[in-house]
Amino acid sequence: MTSAETHKADRTPEIALEEARAAAARGEAPIGAVVTKDGALIAAAGNRTREMNDPTAHAEVLVIRMACEALGQERLVGCDLHVTLEPCPMCAGAISFARIRRLYFGAEDAKGGAVTSGVRLYDQPTCHHAPEVYPGFLERDSAELLRAFFRERRDVPISGA
Amino acid sequence: MTSAETHKADRTPEIALEEARAAAARGEAPIGAVVTKDGALIAAAGNRTREMNDPTAHAEVLVIRMACEALGQERLVGCDLHVTLEPCPMCAGAISFARIRRLYFGAEDAKGGAVTSGVRLYDQPTCHHAPEVYPGFLERDSAELLRAFFRERRDVPISGA
Repeated sequence: MTSAETHKADRTPEIALEEARAAAARGEAPIGAVVTKDGALIAAAGNRTREMNDPTAHAEVLVIRMACEALGQERLVGCDLHVTLEPCPMCAGAISFARIRRLYFGAEDAKGGAVTSGVRLYDQPTCHHAPEVYPGFLERDSAELLRAFFRERRDVPISGA
Repeated sequence: MTSAETHKADRTPEIALEEARAAAARGEAPIGAVVTKDGALIAAAGNRTREMNDPTAHAEVLVIRMACEALGQERLVGCDLHVTLEPCPMCAGAISFARIRRLYFGAEDAKGGAVTSGVRLYDQPTCHHAPEVYPGFLERDSAELLRAFFRERRDVPISGA
């Protein structure tokens, strides 16, 4: 997805879900993420840990890197991030460092999440920047995609949703 | 630093500190990290968030990516990681995903750390892989380097040590 491509703001959840489906088609964990600013799409990405041999190549980390490159800045002040699954501690940390304004996520991840589950990173006194958090977009689609994927692999990284 | 360069195992802490000093000389937060396997140096890196316009470009994330690329694998099973400062939540998460065997860190980071400070990520029931943790290598040198750097910038990301 090219940078600064404009789109209807209300298509953002679907674009994140499309990135998750594309990740599944590549044999990756089906998670997709999008960064927008003032209704414009800045970057979109899905998981690529296997393809890239990179355990940090989660959708959120990739989309933050892409958005920073597109905007030529280290911090994404005023930008919002949609991701189909509740971020893990690594990604929740990256979202905080990037100064994301609003975080929208799809399915909750009771086992691996770090926002409304687990360590609840943004509720900690040591967290310097916490985005506004909006859970539950396209929750059923996002969770079903993950369940189908991991059912085939007999692995269970997501418990709830 | 090239991959698979052999070195005396006990030089690893000094190499991490040299990477931290090199980061400071580039105007980056002075933190350095090294990945070794069976006494061989696999990768070494310092922070490059400013240079790369990438808030995820902490020393630990960079050195994990470099080591995975050098070894051609997504997980660094049997590898150890030295870093001059206690990892933040993002990096502690990346270290867990990478399946690092032993984590050695220099100075504690009471404000930003997530290993022996803050959310103590590896003590959480939701943590799938926790490395063995050894704090305190070259602690005084690592902490003094950070203090000097942030004193100049009137910023204080590290409180203790």
